Amino acid sequence: MEHTAPIEVSNKSFAELLSSMAKTGFQGRRLGLAFEIWLEMLKEERLTILMGLAGAMVPAGMRKILTWMIRNRYVDVLVSTGANLFHDLHEALGFKHYLGSDYVNDEELYREGIDRIYDVFAYEKEFNRLDFLLSEIFAESEGVFSSREIIERIAEKIRGDAKEDSIVLSAYEEGVPIFCPAIADSSIGIGASLASKRCVVDTIRDVEELTEIVAKSEKTGVVYIGGGVPKNFIQQTEVVAKLKGYDVEGHDYAIQITTDSPYFGGLSGCTFEEGISWGKINSKSRKVQVFVDATIALPILAHGLIGAKRKAYPNFSFGEEVKVSYSPRV
Amino acid sequence: MEHTAPIEVSNKSFAELLSSMAKTGFQGRRLGLAFEIWLEMLKEERLTILMGLAGAMVPAGMRKILTWMIRNRYVDVLVSTGANLFHDLHEALGFKHYLGSDYVNDEELYREGIDRIYDVFAYEKEFNRLDFLLSEIFAESEGVFSSREIIERIAEKIRGDAKEDSIVLSAYEEGVPIFCPAIADSSIGIGASLASKRCVVDTIRDVEELTEIVAKSEKTGVVYIGGGVPKNFIQQTEVVAKLKGYDVEGHDYAIQITTDSPYFGGLSGCTFEEGISWGKINSKSRKVQVFVDATIALPILAHGLIGAKRKAYPNFSFGEEVKVSYSPRV
Amino acid sequence: MEHTAPIEVSNKSFAELLSSMAKTGFQGRRLGLAFEIWLEMLKEERLTILMGLAGAMVPAGMRKILTWMIRNRYVDVLVSTGANLFHDLHEALGFKHYLGSDYVNDEELYREGIDRIYDVFAYEKEFNRLDFLLSEIFAESEGVFSSREIIERIAEKIRGDAKEDSIVLSAYEEGVPIFCPAIADSSIGIGASLASKRCVVDTIRDVEELTEIVAKSEKTGVVYIGGGVPKNFIQQTEVVAKLKGYDVEGHDYAIQITTDSPYFGGLSGCTFEEGISWGKINSKSRKVQVFVDATIALPILAHGLIGAKRKAYPNFSFGEEVKVSYSPRV
Amino acid sequence: MEHTAPIEVSNKSFAELLSSMAKTGFQGRRLGLAFEIWLEMLKEERLTILMGLAGAMVPAGMRKILTWMIRNRYVDVLVSTGANLFHDLHEALGFKHYLGSDYVNDEELYREGIDRIYDVFAYEKEFNRLDFLLSEIFAESEGVFSSREIIERIAEKIRGDAKEDSIVLSAYEEGVPIFCPAIADSSIGIGASLASKRCVVDTIRDVEELTEIVAKSEKTGVVYIGGGVPKNFIQQTEVVAKLKGYDVEGHDYAIQITTDSPYFGGLSGCTFEEGISWGKINSKSRKVQVFVDATIALPILAHGLIGAKRKAYPNFSFGEEVKVSYSPRV
Repeated sequence: MEHTAPIEVSNKSFAELLSSMAKTGFQGRRLGLAFEIWLEMLKEERLTILMGLAGAMVPAGMRKILTWMIRNRYVDVLVSTGANLFHDLHEALGFKHYLGSDYVNDEELYREGIDRIYDVFAYEKEFNRLDFLLSEIFAESEGVFSSREIIERIAEKIRGDAKEDSIVLSAYEEGVPIFCPAIADSSIGIGASLASKRCVVDTIRDVEELTEIVAKSEKTGVVYIGGGVPKNFIQQTEVVAKLKGYDVEGHDYAIQITTDSPYFGGLSGCTFEEGISWGKINSKSRKVQVFVDATIALPILAHGLIGAKRKAYPNFSFGEEVKVSYSPRV
Repeated sequence: MEHTAPIEVSNKSFAELLSSMAKTGFQGRRLGLAFEIWLEMLKEERLTILMGLAGAMVPAGMRKILTWMIRNRYVDVLVSTGANLFHDLHEALGFKHYLGSDYVNDEELYREGIDRIYDVFAYEKEFNRLDFLLSEIFAESEGVFSSREIIERIAEKIRGDAKEDSIVLSAYEEGVPIFCPAIADSSIGIGASLASKRCVVDTIRDVEELTEIVAKSEKTGVVYIGGGVPKNFIQQTEVVAKLKGYDVEGHDYAIQITTDSPYFGGLSGCTFEEGISWGKINSKSRKVQVFVDATIALPILAHGLIGAKRKAYPNFSFGEEVKVSYSPRV
Repeated sequence: MEHTAPIEVSNKSFAELLSSMAKTGFQGRRLGLAFEIWLEMLKEERLTILMGLAGAMVPAGMRKILTWMIRNRYVDVLVSTGANLFHDLHEALGFKHYLGSDYVNDEELYREGIDRIYDVFAYEKEFNRLDFLLSEIFAESEGVFSSREIIERIAEKIRGDAKEDSIVLSAYEEGVPIFCPAIADSSIGIGASLASKRCVVDTIRDVEELTEIVAKSEKTGVVYIGGGVPKNFIQQTEVVAKLKGYDVEGHDYAIQITTDSPYFGGLSGCTFEEGISWGKINSKSRKVQVFVDATIALPILAHGLIGAKRKAYPNFSFGEEVKVSYSPRV
Repeated sequence: MEHTAPIEVSNKSFAELLSSMAKTGFQGRRLGLAFEIWLEMLKEERLTILMGLAGAMVPAGMRKILTWMIRNRYVDVLVSTGANLFHDLHEALGFKHYLGSDYVNDEELYREGIDRIYDVFAYEKEFNRLDFLLSEIFAESEGVFSSREIIERIAEKIRGDAKEDSIVLSAYEEGVPIFCPAIADSSIGIGASLASKRCVVDTIRDVEELTEIVAKSEKTGVVYIGGGVPKNFIQQTEVVAKLKGYDVEGHDYAIQITTDSPYFGGLSGCTFEEGISWGKINSKSRKVQVFVDATIALPILAHGLIGAKRKAYPNFSFGEEVKVSYSPRV
């Protein structure tokens, strides 16, 4: 048996610390393994990395980290809650989230027009400006779209006014498709519902598009920040692909940063082992779940990844059918 | 100050035990309070009770309890994950979930065609039969529908073949609308994506319909089983209604059964106090969150509610606009 | 495979509901299994049931339930935190805990002399009266005692003034030994430290006494309410007994009600499977862990156990050596 | 209001990252605040830093980090579970913990003599060698000792054979007292119980000694790694000191790294706000609780603290009475 290697406190890089954590125990070890698995993914030549993003990550200060991951193509496809995209656009336009507190009188906040997200505050009025801006974009759009197409459309429209780089904008520019399958359940959906007339978002089309991406990628790796719809939506592509006759065998790499426990039976907290029984995760995959708040894990992992080189990354084209090809990363 | 009343062990009903738990501490007290708040809701004359349903409640044996709640109109509107509806239809058609184990070799399960949901098993093949049945229903449907309309359509089609009463069927018969705003993210969405041609589910229409229900209900009470999209989707109606010019002031009663913690900042686990800052919850509301697995809370609460009489309940009509009227419960 | 049996809502007893929960999934099933295992233990002819008790169970209104369990000999040996015993004596003497709130200004409470335990309040002054009462008992005691002996001594002294039945008093009268191995870490220890002169509590003697009890019991069953020292202290007896040359093979039945997760590596949340590797739990044991607040589980389980008959129970004598004999329960 | 500052991914030190995390949200912010509070403590001129240490930190690879903290006097007093001290001595003597797995057959491990601690393994036989070594030390010791004195005695005896630096040894050499108030509940207690004859550990004396330390320190800061006895034992000193007539006003700084939730009412997870009501925490204190596994938090915090200079630190003498004096750190 290999023995644990107690961590020596000494000047080292984030990458070095994460590697040494992989030789300890409990969730510390798992964070180290998550880092190692991410590095391995970057060395693959024909791999598509899908990220599921849930939780109020942007209000909690994670926008630039996620944007940086997209710009560096440590992520190739993003499936997100609508809230994260909304808050990202909010910050892209120069609006802010504020350092608040969870020990506070919420009735007072309400009277002052301040919305609370645990210990982060935001001005309701600023949110509303974006609500109506989005409603205009929806009003100008006619037809039936996947959520991916709508997010792209929003990126196009908002780009000129942006004051800050953002998840939505960087993804648009880097060719990273963003899916938002529960779009109705967010301020983007609210914006849509406020439009005098509007397009239809056909989220079943998202199922089809994302399944094609997964089926046509030679290998897939998944990184789940939280659980919820984004995790399940990416997980289920393997089931859909199989039902559609594709020869798929589950994701090849899997990382989850989560605060949900497996023993309550929900999909958000379920283990990747459970995913193996469904064929969602390959039994030969490298996989790890880390039970930790992503606002701790993401900064550490990102600073560990600095300088890591992606060997090759996928390009997607969405015409009649979805096409996936791989380019070397230079 | 009123002192705690340590629980006496004696022959008593579930209702009596729950009431006595309300005089103790910690989550036991909260479960007692949840019961008391539900009873209070039933005494209201013009109140709409909206339930958000997440987590694999049907595989975990909660189908009949939820069906019973609908039949007794302890619930007036249901917002659910697609999975719960899918599993409900599965059982309605006579298929089963099985007593499994979480200590198991998942690779073996995969080879045997068994899907695992924590300690519950199901046959992949039986799931697939329903997948394809749903795909046929979608293929036969043309046009643009809200998820509520699609669920009704499915109920209609499947009703004749049902072997068991179910959430979807009882709701259909009792006039309880079911919304499934993240329908793409479930086996119902999978079914849809398998259809040769199909209708479009316009989930923004769900936002509109549910907001109308909330805005036109004199009072609203919410019961969240888990968090996820169902909770947020019901919570956000108050925000939408206000933006649309309705005079709303947040839900009047609120119960959540959850295993998510507030301190990770996600909407699933956030407190109702936080909801007050957003105007989602009325600051004068009666509200309680209970940190407990719903597979424990639901059986206890349901058996406590036996015999509780609902004073009056709402009827909904979904023509040009949504209408809400109240009938006495006889 | 046996299929799940969705729970039917109908007039039934607590015992019936718990049995039907054992045919569902997730933590609901586990609570049902905990009940069934407890019933099985009661049918054994030569079994000693050891309960570990942590968490502020008495302030949370569980005193009478625990007392009732002792009076009915559903428990034969108690290992407890000092706090639970202190709060039990507090209530035995007629002092109260109060229905407070966790949304409160703690600085104000401090000024008013109110101590908060989550949503339960108590008067600091009333606690102090008991602190000094205990310090007198310690001052009057000379010699070296096990914590078991000291708790008995306290029971003897306080008995005359008791206004309510209690854990400590019922255990004293029913011959149920109570161990408090971390006695220094509680208000009992505070009381001792206030005594002008005092006896010495030799908690290593507790290790010896409890190990003897376990080694000389034909079979053992454990029920852990929470984790902490009480759980570990009972678990370790199997290790000690083996090191002392006894032929032991781990506890034969094991139930834990806990809110601690296994994946953080602590003993409080560790699985009984882990305990098997240490020889603390018999690999053939019936065992279950339920992830739920004990203030929910205990009332339900106790009301399920009403009328359950214990076949036989152990008697302990603590002379030169510990002796264990079994008597039929009449 | 100050706005959040989304973290920029760029070459930075651990200290810089932690400082920037303090400007985000959720637990990431809290980890940043924990770091800032620790730095502030180091700048105090007359402050005693007490660490409570629970959880299997040494098997999980934290020995060297904790040792480094002691050597640098970022910690002045340690209150620990017995297990951590036992595992520390185990590694000090050159024995190892091994990289195991939580997906494993525990019955097989048992047959192979391997003890499992979540995903860490150890050889039972190696543990037993230390058990008997400790039993010899206890057998050679006569009299009545505080746990602090016993730990010192063990340090003295084992020092010559040590192959690795350790918590116990560094504390001995640096004048950092270690208290183990639940010593019976650990392998150290097991060792004691195996001794043919032995000394008595009077843990009430620990209450007295630690209370004196706290009462005679000009200011106190607490750092809790986990909860359990170590946290409560340090917290209660403020109550004892007050009862003994000292003029104390609660700890001045407080950090907790924990995975326990406040809403289950236990002391391990209770908030420092609750501690204010008891007078354990000063209402003007700087305080933060971080909900994260310590195996993640400790490595990050330690590497952030590299180079941080302690202004002055306390010296303790334990004669008739406890004396505390402060020396500048050079």
